[in-house]
Amino acid sequence: MLGFDRIGWIEKDIPEVGPTDALCRPLAISPCTSDVHTVWEHAIGDRHDLILGHEASAEVVEVGSLVKDFKPGDKVIIPAITPDWEAVESQAGFSQHSYGMLNGWKFSNVKDGTFAEYFHVNQADGNLAHLPEEISVVDAVMLSDMVPTGFHGANNAEVAYGETVVVIGIGPVGLMAVAGSVLRGAGRVYAVGSRKKCQEVAKFYGATDIINYRDGDIVEQIFEAQKGKHVDKVILAGGGLETFEQAVKLVRPGGIVSNINYLGSGDYLPIPRVEWGLGMGHIRIIGGLMPGGRKNMDYLAQLLVNKRLDVSPLLTHRFGNFKDLEEGLLLMKDKPSDLIKPVIELG
Amino acid sequence: MLGFDRIGWIEKDIPEVGPTDALCRPLAISPCTSDVHTVWEHAIGDRHDLILGHEASAEVVEVGSLVKDFKPGDKVIIPAITPDWEAVESQAGFSQHSYGMLNGWKFSNVKDGTFAEYFHVNQADGNLAHLPEEISVVDAVMLSDMVPTGFHGANNAEVAYGETVVVIGIGPVGLMAVAGSVLRGAGRVYAVGSRKKCQEVAKFYGATDIINYRDGDIVEQIFEAQKGKHVDKVILAGGGLETFEQAVKLVRPGGIVSNINYLGSGDYLPIPRVEWGLGMGHIRIIGGLMPGGRKNMDYLAQLLVNKRLDVSPLLTHRFGNFKDLEEGLLLMKDKPSDLIKPVIELG
Amino acid sequence: MLGFDRIGWIEKDIPEVGPTDALCRPLAISPCTSDVHTVWEHAIGDRHDLILGHEASAEVVEVGSLVKDFKPGDKVIIPAITPDWEAVESQAGFSQHSYGMLNGWKFSNVKDGTFAEYFHVNQADGNLAHLPEEISVVDAVMLSDMVPTGFHGANNAEVAYGETVVVIGIGPVGLMAVAGSVLRGAGRVYAVGSRKKCQEVAKFYGATDIINYRDGDIVEQIFEAQKGKHVDKVILAGGGLETFEQAVKLVRPGGIVSNINYLGSGDYLPIPRVEWGLGMGHIRIIGGLMPGGRKNMDYLAQLLVNKRLDVSPLLTHRFGNFKDLEEGLLLMKDKPSDLIKPVIELG
Amino acid sequence: MLGFDRIGWIEKDIPEVGPTDALCRPLAISPCTSDVHTVWEHAIGDRHDLILGHEASAEVVEVGSLVKDFKPGDKVIIPAITPDWEAVESQAGFSQHSYGMLNGWKFSNVKDGTFAEYFHVNQADGNLAHLPEEISVVDAVMLSDMVPTGFHGANNAEVAYGETVVVIGIGPVGLMAVAGSVLRGAGRVYAVGSRKKCQEVAKFYGATDIINYRDGDIVEQIFEAQKGKHVDKVILAGGGLETFEQAVKLVRPGGIVSNINYLGSGDYLPIPRVEWGLGMGHIRIIGGLMPGGRKNMDYLAQLLVNKRLDVSPLLTHRFGNFKDLEEGLLLMKDKPSDLIKPVIELG
Repeated sequence: MLGFDRIGWIEKDIPEVGPTDALCRPLAISPCTSDVHTVWEHAIGDRHDLILGHEASAEVVEVGSLVKDFKPGDKVIIPAITPDWEAVESQAGFSQHSYGMLNGWKFSNVKDGTFAEYFHVNQADGNLAHLPEEISVVDAVMLSDMVPTGFHGANNAEVAYGETVVVIGIGPVGLMAVAGSVLRGAGRVYAVGSRKKCQEVAKFYGATDIINYRDGDIVEQIFEAQKGKHVDKVILAGGGLETFEQAVKLVRPGGIVSNINYLGSGDYLPIPRVEWGLGMGHIRIIGGLMPGGRKNMDYLAQLLVNKRLDVSPLLTHRFGNFKDLEEGLLLMKDKPSDLIKPVIELG
Repeated sequence: MLGFDRIGWIEKDIPEVGPTDALCRPLAISPCTSDVHTVWEHAIGDRHDLILGHEASAEVVEVGSLVKDFKPGDKVIIPAITPDWEAVESQAGFSQHSYGMLNGWKFSNVKDGTFAEYFHVNQADGNLAHLPEEISVVDAVMLSDMVPTGFHGANNAEVAYGETVVVIGIGPVGLMAVAGSVLRGAGRVYAVGSRKKCQEVAKFYGATDIINYRDGDIVEQIFEAQKGKHVDKVILAGGGLETFEQAVKLVRPGGIVSNINYLGSGDYLPIPRVEWGLGMGHIRIIGGLMPGGRKNMDYLAQLLVNKRLDVSPLLTHRFGNFKDLEEGLLLMKDKPSDLIKPVIELG
Repeated sequence: MLGFDRIGWIEKDIPEVGPTDALCRPLAISPCTSDVHTVWEHAIGDRHDLILGHEASAEVVEVGSLVKDFKPGDKVIIPAITPDWEAVESQAGFSQHSYGMLNGWKFSNVKDGTFAEYFHVNQADGNLAHLPEEISVVDAVMLSDMVPTGFHGANNAEVAYGETVVVIGIGPVGLMAVAGSVLRGAGRVYAVGSRKKCQEVAKFYGATDIINYRDGDIVEQIFEAQKGKHVDKVILAGGGLETFEQAVKLVRPGGIVSNINYLGSGDYLPIPRVEWGLGMGHIRIIGGLMPGGRKNMDYLAQLLVNKRLDVSPLLTHRFGNFKDLEEGLLLMKDKPSDLIKPVIELG
Repeated sequence: MLGFDRIGWIEKDIPEVGPTDALCRPLAISPCTSDVHTVWEHAIGDRHDLILGHEASAEVVEVGSLVKDFKPGDKVIIPAITPDWEAVESQAGFSQHSYGMLNGWKFSNVKDGTFAEYFHVNQADGNLAHLPEEISVVDAVMLSDMVPTGFHGANNAEVAYGETVVVIGIGPVGLMAVAGSVLRGAGRVYAVGSRKKCQEVAKFYGATDIINYRDGDIVEQIFEAQKGKHVDKVILAGGGLETFEQAVKLVRPGGIVSNINYLGSGDYLPIPRVEWGLGMGHIRIIGGLMPGGRKNMDYLAQLLVNKRLDVSPLLTHRFGNFKDLEEGLLLMKDKPSDLIKPVIELG
């Protein structure tokens, strides 16, 4: 990213490695919708000559003097969120917000990202995870952001055995919310989206019902399928602020609306007073950035190792050269009908 | 209540008692702001010849054939919320919403209330609690609604040791939210309200700082006192929908906004997108009716028995005759400066 | 059961139906190891002329005057545990222990069980669940006890994404603990058992490793497979008190030992002091009877309806006449190598 | 500590300070029963020339190059437990066990303690807390271990409004468990101990009943006072392994036994099978070392700042010179009747 709306290649010095840090070389990378937000929707404000990217698998090239568990040559998973672990917020269980709201998000936000020959990882022992040999470097890229974000949505929704879950938005993150719901024991799962490819993959991940918002109001469609019964949980992985009104209308007393969608514009989330039980309906509303760091990567990787989760249906477009990145990024911007995620495997 | 805006006395038959029910005679009663909402703000829709009231201590007069734990002559605490315990919602932990949202609230809503010579209690074994001899019938009335509602606010806020809590609105429910926060280990507690009497009582219950919204924006005042630091939790016990915006602005990532305020008008709660972390700030929003039934009464009563909580400062206006009820109700409507709660002790 | 060690058929009057109760006719039934414990191991003390059985699907024959949601002719799932829902213990979330420890367990314990032409269900609205048409009456029997007990073990173990779980004992309940762990997102799952048939079915339900205690100490075998690393959770579904020592040795700090095994003999569970962290290792130990009632049935049934769980591999021996029950019960006592569960479908 | 059973003064080099560390000078210190265990009961194995002590308030003397929030001259609270915050265990919420069970405990265990002219603190930004000016350096020492350990016991017991709690052992940690239970809303609190001074202070902290084990079996005494009713929670802060049997007998189904007592000898905790509900009674057993680090200190300090907790009754013996430490340590060993904690204020 050169500036608003402009992307290109730049030369930068190799980052310096502090005592707890690591320098890594990407083995595979993937552009994210967030990168598109950053460049073309100006989501996080102006940035000049910022290297994009926060999804990657990598090889460790250099480590600081205090790093204990990693050494040059190790293959690693890179989490999109790399917190400061000693921060009070991290100690309180919210490492995403270490030293400030969303401040665990560093790549392509407050420092250069992973779309570079070499990139810097803070607190390597806490923020890298060893790549198990059962996982390919390409699959591993989905562990950086897509899997943990979608699964965080299901965790925050506290999906339990047999519950009925609606996932609104079935891009890659929403698809992982579907998979994450099923892997927490969901019963019926409604997937809301219009693109045929995404609908197919949603079914692969266990969606039982597909709702297309082009066929009418989604609240009405779901209540009809439910014969008027409320659902247990809604996970928001797409759409604008208006989805919150839909979600609250759908959820039973005691249910949860769990947002994992980056809300890029608008002033207020419209929570409808009456359906929210006049303030007393116990419909909980939560939204959260995925947790960062090693532990989350270690555990989610076990889902791939033990064949509980297959991420390959997400990887619709595969490239083999660094220079293909630009094409990949433009794919994410333009979203052709057969795209879920592009991935670039590097030499 | 005769109809909208009209109150008076009416004669009705004594309610019939089913196999699991009880008939009770009030020993002390108290009108609630909800009663005012019902009559003069038309909050729950039109009602004709409905007996008001959901706060009382009482004596059991008659019990159904299946009732095991209560017998005529027993002195009891009456919870404002009397759920259907076999309902799926109750089994799921949300008895307030047994067989439908807010449907655990029966007195003066879907059936006659406690302001009568005799009133009916459904599922007596689950919805009455024995009055410990250490608690006066007058104090016991505060256990019907004021204590459990305020304390539910603190429970939903998950107040923990040393946390900084803001309670917005310090009528009787807000005051109990202050007391409930302190009894969950809160450190600094900001109480937001303008009436001098309420401010005094808030300090009695452990508020460390009084914020008067007449002195300026409460968000600014609190951030100034906090030197810019966010608070951990906000409990909403007063104000309109706009308080949600204030609350979200005040709370740290990972914090909670807990509403116990009946939201009587307006269309949407305005949750500010940016301060809510663009959807990713982990600021949880929850609002809930107090839990009903016996267990809650039994445990909260232990706070009075063991002198952890003194409810007498709430009882600013005491009467001794049933006919004083009308005056008590009008006091709640007009809210003179020295009023917190009126209570009528019956012979 | 006629008395200790003696079974046979007896004639009894049809039970009377109170206002909140139902009378049911079994459609399918299954004997349980608990029945064996009761008769031949004298587990719950002497009983005379007690009708056994607590697993069944059924048809409603008669309902009490206060029953709202069920009527004669309805096909229903029968939970093994049928609590008193108004009890304080149920209100506190432990309906299994309504009015006393384990007292939610009524069938073939404090009243006659389901192995009869007609049987009685207390609090029908809270303790029956409508049988969805997608589920056969035979499969439905597994929802009475096997599925909810196994899944309760996984719930109490708080199994989370990618965690490593050991299930000790892979009879039908242990197998459901394997399935329940996988449906909560477990990664690696060790199943400990010696019978070949059970090992095969454990793999079907997602076990990744089979450990046979006949091949040596299971703690050693698992640590070897784990390369010395502790596991996250252990679920005990078989063995004697000594399994607690094994479990504590296997679990990491912060992990959980979750027991669902009926402990029939011995005086003390031997928790090893050193491996329990000298009292400070945060290894939680919990054991619990499955939750009873309708809500649990409703939600678990959704796992069958939506094809998340297939119980048919449990049903190794199928019969078609009431009189085959005796053979089924003796099968459970003798446990031939190819048995998991017998089930009798009635006309 | 020179070796087993031998204490004395030794000269050592001032510790080196790494990039994330700090060097501190104690302002006040206190010996702990753990120090006695270490020297005279050989609890953690042999140590030679180990500097004892893990309770202190201090002044920062030097900080490493990466330390951001502390500088020389800052007055700080020192937590007894100083975890490695980047460790996977810390990320999972169990920082006490960073890189191994109990391994967050470093002072006077795996490195020199606080009873020195200067001592070393690892990860200063995560493990120091600024001392609020409202708290004296002497009171602050109680925040190192006594307050957080006792309060952790109440947290693990999940004490809730109105619950009945038994605290077994009322040395300083048990007294803080009493205070911590009351500050989580406990109703009736039984304090079990024999020393008159401790009984007095237990009442000061809110114990409602004193039980002296010299007056007979404590289980019998408590059931008599309870009229046969079980209690909700038991916190173990003293006694040997046999207290677990007593605790399980006292607790209701769904209750918790929470241990904070260092268990120095014996092989197995004797959990009684029958009272544990034959494995199905939902009596949870948990034991845990206090959480370490800054966040816990920051929040607990707010209890002192806001006058929710007064630690001065714990400080029965006050000294003013470093050389008095030996006398203080021997006091802890001999436990005279009027002792709770000695504290030494340094120049």
